[in-house]
Amino acid sequence: MKEIGVGLLGFGTVGAGVVEGLQRNGDLIADRCGVRIVLRKIADLDLERDRGVTVDRSILTTDASAVIADPSIDIIIELIGGVGIARDLVIEALKAGKPVVTANKKLLAEYGAELFALADENKVDLKFEASVAGGIPIILALRDGLVANHIPNVYGILNGTCNYILTRMEAEGLPFDEVLQEAQDAGYAEAEPSLDIDGHDAAHKACLLASLAYGFPVPLDAVYVEGIRDISGEDVDYAAGLGYRIKLLAIIKKRGTKVSVRVHPTLVPDGHMIASVNGVFNAVMVSGDIVDDTLYYGKGAGRLPTASAVISDVAAVAQQVSTESSVHLPAFIPEGGNHELQNIEDVECRYYLRFSLMDKPGVIGRVAQVLGDHGISIASLVQPSQQKDDYVPVIMTTHGAREASCNQALKSIEAMSDIVGAKTIRYRIEDFEDPS
Amino acid sequence: MKEIGVGLLGFGTVGAGVVEGLQRNGDLIADRCGVRIVLRKIADLDLERDRGVTVDRSILTTDASAVIADPSIDIIIELIGGVGIARDLVIEALKAGKPVVTANKKLLAEYGAELFALADENKVDLKFEASVAGGIPIILALRDGLVANHIPNVYGILNGTCNYILTRMEAEGLPFDEVLQEAQDAGYAEAEPSLDIDGHDAAHKACLLASLAYGFPVPLDAVYVEGIRDISGEDVDYAAGLGYRIKLLAIIKKRGTKVSVRVHPTLVPDGHMIASVNGVFNAVMVSGDIVDDTLYYGKGAGRLPTASAVISDVAAVAQQVSTESSVHLPAFIPEGGNHELQNIEDVECRYYLRFSLMDKPGVIGRVAQVLGDHGISIASLVQPSQQKDDYVPVIMTTHGAREASCNQALKSIEAMSDIVGAKTIRYRIEDFEDPS
Repeated sequence: MKEIGVGLLGFGTVGAGVVEGLQRNGDLIADRCGVRIVLRKIADLDLERDRGVTVDRSILTTDASAVIADPSIDIIIELIGGVGIARDLVIEALKAGKPVVTANKKLLAEYGAELFALADENKVDLKFEASVAGGIPIILALRDGLVANHIPNVYGILNGTCNYILTRMEAEGLPFDEVLQEAQDAGYAEAEPSLDIDGHDAAHKACLLASLAYGFPVPLDAVYVEGIRDISGEDVDYAAGLGYRIKLLAIIKKRGTKVSVRVHPTLVPDGHMIASVNGVFNAVMVSGDIVDDTLYYGKGAGRLPTASAVISDVAAVAQQVSTESSVHLPAFIPEGGNHELQNIEDVECRYYLRFSLMDKPGVIGRVAQVLGDHGISIASLVQPSQQKDDYVPVIMTTHGAREASCNQALKSIEAMSDIVGAKTIRYRIEDFEDPS
Repeated sequence: MKEIGVGLLGFGTVGAGVVEGLQRNGDLIADRCGVRIVLRKIADLDLERDRGVTVDRSILTTDASAVIADPSIDIIIELIGGVGIARDLVIEALKAGKPVVTANKKLLAEYGAELFALADENKVDLKFEASVAGGIPIILALRDGLVANHIPNVYGILNGTCNYILTRMEAEGLPFDEVLQEAQDAGYAEAEPSLDIDGHDAAHKACLLASLAYGFPVPLDAVYVEGIRDISGEDVDYAAGLGYRIKLLAIIKKRGTKVSVRVHPTLVPDGHMIASVNGVFNAVMVSGDIVDDTLYYGKGAGRLPTASAVISDVAAVAQQVSTESSVHLPAFIPEGGNHELQNIEDVECRYYLRFSLMDKPGVIGRVAQVLGDHGISIASLVQPSQQKDDYVPVIMTTHGAREASCNQALKSIEAMSDIVGAKTIRYRIEDFEDPS
């Protein structure tokens, strides 16, 4: 059987997972692909640490460039992470005409335009299944499975850490800080958790999904991001009372030429598949104009799930390389027509609002008046309890309204210092309405 | 741009969907694939009926063989259905060296071994994404996305008609017959519904999924099948009380060399993703030894969702044909090692049992004794109400037991005519335990 040489750059957690996957299931993969994937070199600065897998010491090296230059190596796997040396090496590999498989969402979200252009220029693949939703074959589904479809909506639970925290807060009634600490102790959250809990990691992935769905590199700064750090158990409970669960949701929509990409805490209806995604699991719901709603679910992170995705990319490229196929399709294929990235201010959605209002007659009327003045109509209103405090929580949900109008209304309401006790809590609601 | 000619055999519901999909999104598909798919001929016996799409009359013909023989046609789409003429034409096309795309699960479940062997012999593809779970790209996920994985489990809600009926029974508290009638009126069920409601359609699909997961053609008669015709609202309610929903579930497992494939009404735990699949939607959960649990969800039938899958297959083959790629991988790639198909009698699972027992002391003890004698231990027992009738329902769930033992125990219990009022209702429970 023909052999395809692979060089691995970065022997960390996922790198070791890839080695384990190839060792455990190498024969199966070879049978399925008609070509054997042979790991010829691994480059890492640390050649001593125990990764829980056994490799021949002779394939270890600290010289990543030598791995790229090695003529027995056909495919480069980049698992270094970050945007420094990883970027340099991906550029080096693409320029050397070697296809690259990466799990580096940050690199692609920030430098994708440049890197994919370089891949196209050199007619080699830059594959990234593992960079979005870990083990879930979502890139494959979007590119190939749904090739016949325009994609009006993509919704994603793309960060397992956040989903774990929100699931625990809801199930156990625990506060955010306590669950974060617990997630850190369990290894589900980093010691420095901001990349996850402030939504940036999910934003990187949303950026890639949007780019893929609409065929142009969506700049990262066009993605509106809000994290889960400030979500209180109170709001989790009130949302539940209204039949919703709070998820950190990536929402990607195209209406006409307008594309919006945002990541923020979102109330999703209880019975919806997306609401059933618990713990560290990820899910991506893709609506196609031909296929209707589809959803893909699995582990979004972790050594082996991520390795599964890396290996699937390597296998696909290996088959191409082995047949000396000259086909190279660009990563992002424009849909035709213009695209316009929509600012969050122009996005319309429903809102969950928790006001802190003086508990006396006429107050709710004044608030409702301001909302009405900004064209925002109330869908439901609950005042859960009359409390001893001067201020009581009043929870409203609204019908669809423009973000800019909502911002203005909330600003006006906050200025009514005689009746308003605290900043209004505002979350967006997604009802997954049919775009057609 | 290079053109690839396609011939469509069968201009029915899905055929018209394929025409509509290609008409609506042909440019997009061409951009994405780097090749234009051109529908050159449509063969059907009825050339007059209005299908809701406009096609040039000159491409319509009643002569399917001429379509296959047409040198301007590179790919054949078979959407005739059934195992008569469809089988003959697929054989004719494969022998002519033309790749075939089909949605015909019955044909492949019954004649797959022969047809896939013929495809391999002629080194052409026989693709069938649309034949399992409609628009969901599950074949792609299994073959390519999870290429790195051994597959211990596949679970599927594979028949939208059954899932619609069960969802309605549960949500509305309606009896089976009434919901079936309603489903027929709404067009979700056939006038002759037995293929769906007796589980055969799901069995065809389970057969294909198992063949794909384990790499050998699983014969249809190795699939244990039980339909939903006898499910009563009573059991739906009792199951709900125990925290379960009843679904028609395909369960495919491999343990060691043993492969079991079965389709039957199954109690699934409430909070599980599979339990959240409602209405006409399908879902397939695939566990991989590297990737862990993954799930794929979408519409399992219907004109356009099915067309989406057909077109994705055509697009993949068109790209191969256009590059004159000589790669042909067999449809089923053996995993290595032996496989042994397990009889339902040897399968072990948990059971839901509803007995009809005389309402007097000592009766439950006698039943429990018989279960114990057959090695079956009780996990829970509920006697919902003491009724005026002589006989009352007693609901038990068991721990894991072999099917053969359960059959014997139930036979012995039914023989106790002094205390047993009716045949015991028995459903299987699936807790989706981790196989590792």
